[in-house]
Amino acid sequence: MTADVVALLRAALGDRVDTSTASREAARADKSGHAAVGTPLAIVHATSVRDVQETLRTASATGTPVVTRGAATGLAGGANAGAGEIALSMRSMNRLLEVRAEDLLAVVEPGILNADLDRGLAPHGLWWPPDPASREVSTVGGNIATGAGGLLCAKYGVVRDAVLALDVVLADGRLLHLGHRSVKGVTGLDLTALMIGSEGTLGVIVGATLKLRRRVPGAPRTLTATFTGVRDAANAAAAVTASGRQPAIMELMDAASLAAVHAHLALPDPSRGEAQLTVQTDGPTAADDAGAIAAVLAACGGEVRLAEDDSDAAQLWRVRRSLHPAMEALGTTLIEDVSVPRSALPAMFDEIARIEREYALTIPTVCHAGDGNLHPNFVFTGPDVPDAVWAAADDLFRAALRLGGTLTGEHGIGVLKRRWLKVELGEDQWQLQRQIARVFDPAGILNPGKVFAPPPPSSAVPYHGGT
Amino acid sequence: MTADVVALLRAALGDRVDTSTASREAARADKSGHAAVGTPLAIVHATSVRDVQETLRTASATGTPVVTRGAATGLAGGANAGAGEIALSMRSMNRLLEVRAEDLLAVVEPGILNADLDRGLAPHGLWWPPDPASREVSTVGGNIATGAGGLLCAKYGVVRDAVLALDVVLADGRLLHLGHRSVKGVTGLDLTALMIGSEGTLGVIVGATLKLRRRVPGAPRTLTATFTGVRDAANAAAAVTASGRQPAIMELMDAASLAAVHAHLALPDPSRGEAQLTVQTDGPTAADDAGAIAAVLAACGGEVRLAEDDSDAAQLWRVRRSLHPAMEALGTTLIEDVSVPRSALPAMFDEIARIEREYALTIPTVCHAGDGNLHPNFVFTGPDVPDAVWAAADDLFRAALRLGGTLTGEHGIGVLKRRWLKVELGEDQWQLQRQIARVFDPAGILNPGKVFAPPPPSSAVPYHGGT
Repeated sequence: MTADVVALLRAALGDRVDTSTASREAARADKSGHAAVGTPLAIVHATSVRDVQETLRTASATGTPVVTRGAATGLAGGANAGAGEIALSMRSMNRLLEVRAEDLLAVVEPGILNADLDRGLAPHGLWWPPDPASREVSTVGGNIATGAGGLLCAKYGVVRDAVLALDVVLADGRLLHLGHRSVKGVTGLDLTALMIGSEGTLGVIVGATLKLRRRVPGAPRTLTATFTGVRDAANAAAAVTASGRQPAIMELMDAASLAAVHAHLALPDPSRGEAQLTVQTDGPTAADDAGAIAAVLAACGGEVRLAEDDSDAAQLWRVRRSLHPAMEALGTTLIEDVSVPRSALPAMFDEIARIEREYALTIPTVCHAGDGNLHPNFVFTGPDVPDAVWAAADDLFRAALRLGGTLTGEHGIGVLKRRWLKVELGEDQWQLQRQIARVFDPAGILNPGKVFAPPPPSSAVPYHGGT
Repeated sequence: MTADVVALLRAALGDRVDTSTASREAARADKSGHAAVGTPLAIVHATSVRDVQETLRTASATGTPVVTRGAATGLAGGANAGAGEIALSMRSMNRLLEVRAEDLLAVVEPGILNADLDRGLAPHGLWWPPDPASREVSTVGGNIATGAGGLLCAKYGVVRDAVLALDVVLADGRLLHLGHRSVKGVTGLDLTALMIGSEGTLGVIVGATLKLRRRVPGAPRTLTATFTGVRDAANAAAAVTASGRQPAIMELMDAASLAAVHAHLALPDPSRGEAQLTVQTDGPTAADDAGAIAAVLAACGGEVRLAEDDSDAAQLWRVRRSLHPAMEALGTTLIEDVSVPRSALPAMFDEIARIEREYALTIPTVCHAGDGNLHPNFVFTGPDVPDAVWAAADDLFRAALRLGGTLTGEHGIGVLKRRWLKVELGEDQWQLQRQIARVFDPAGILNPGKVFAPPPPSSAVPYHGGT
């Protein structure tokens, strides 16, 4: 049967069907640290919509699961393919097909990297706002399939706000055109929106019509403010939001994350407990906004530093940008991703402090403070997430939900959070969502075991960190 | 059976169950001119989530259809209730429950009027952008259920971009909480987005958490430009979009609509063929943007007039605002609602001119030129839409689809456009959408006969204009 599937794929797709051990091994993992059990049958490198349709027709005919992947930069294991599965890579479908400045839209294939799209749009003076930290190495299709967020969401919106239309191949190989090229449109149900963040469970995105903006004019301004504790920094961030000045970016680093980065970069140690906000303003009022925000932060007790020039700004941003390498230097990292209403940030940091005490852990945390999305980092030794870390993560998720927030602001459910999906959705909504997924994929061959799969029998999730 | 349903409702809901002839007659119609066949069994004036749940439990138990309505300002017949149906009015659930400036969110009941919400938010310096022309008399719940747009969508987004969470009662009476209070969140499928524009077919919206903005600071600027023909005006609008200056509002009136309004207001007749753009800029760069846009319009051959002050601006806007009364003075009006990519506006006006010639009709057309949404008006005598008008409308819809647009930018499908739903969606997507609706409402009691109902056997749609 296994040989049959690969033979059928090869008959239809020739050398786009890759069964090399290296490729099949690579398709087991993303950037989460999680890897699937076993290796997939093959990885199909689709180069056209027709390739995707052929793959899904073969998969449907043989009942073979299909796991779609882009650049595999996901942080929840959603694109990891294992034993008996076909890995369907969209990475080779990476063309920027159309740019229409007069309509503020672009049409892309899903495998284009976010940064390559940006380089393609820049000469037209255009810009697609969704801007995940992984932009240099992640695909637009993955960005859409995950509903990935980024640093700019408070000012410039989330992915859902920036997609006009999607072409989608269903599990049985049929091609659907969802949405339209106009700004407005309310014909029937909004399946374009439903696809965003569906993590490969509803269909395969083979084309996207993106809603663009003009590039923001003028030079951005950058400032930092340090505080004697993370709670003060979180309160200051809330004060900025309450002031009505809208930063483009507002990032918060708690004491543990700031200290780890300073050590990693061989900078002088920060004061004990010191936390930091880094803020960027942009647009025609960038300078005025930066001044007003500086005043708010100083009034909240912050020690403020305005970047003098672009090079100085780059130095300030280097600290925030070095968080992941600094964590990796400490050990295996499980990056969490809860999101809360902005006013609940101080309370959420209190919860993190409580969890640190109760589980005897240090949880270095950075936060998109402009939008309330926190990334607590659990760092441990060895490849497997210790039980105590999962117990602490469970506590963390429930705290975020109590505060009106969510399990995942931008990374998705994938494999790593399927245990908690029902906790957030409730039984009724969880069942409803599963039934909707079954309408798209009656045989359940699209990314099975992810998102809606019943929680595994034990708390243990296969995990092989440090990739 | 009929008596049983009303008796059961009354036992559960007492005097919130209204069977007066006047109320039941009123529940047959919205602002589209369409009225349902027959009168509903009763109208339930829900005052709480529990009332809605009781209504739906009774409806489910007895297999009785439920048609949800707000202020009945719809333009597609979606809220019209007829024989054998329960009309469920949300108009009495009209409280502004919570305003959180620090989180830029508000929680409302669905029956609150858009304008009342705005009056409630203004003292907090806050604003909910979705701004239909009907704002003084339409509800927020109806706005969301329709995906209604308005004048500001190009700059400030559509309804989908402005809703964080919805509370929804399903057909069987269960209450679901969709979405979250945080800016970001990608837990499972985005059912909040799916509800927006679902026109009462998936569930009853009983609460909404709205994503707010700060009120735009500074005084807006208004200007008009007249052109010798509508094609020139459409090209000028496209040139404004291409210039990178973003108007808050950009409205286009073609010659027939401009002449009709001038006659209605007893203003001097415009020149033959004269079309007009009315533009508003806002925010910190309002004056600079207005100057730049004036220059673009003048370069496109427009005769530009900048409003000198607020009172002058109000006079300029009075012309655009008088369109509907002017149309009503001419006869019964069928207001259409196609939307196209902005660059296709000149081509769409060419199609309208062709349709006018081929069907020997005059089709006064106004257009949200900033976003490409056109409202061609078919005016006729008597209560019923003539066959020639439906034939011309059919031609109009297909032209918009050929140009990459949609049947409906902001009014919805309701009853009046269900014939064409499959033309836009295609058979496969139409079937998929119907199946999704059945997951929410297996017995098909929510707004049956609307949106997904099979097209009626003849082209005739019951219509009783002039409401």
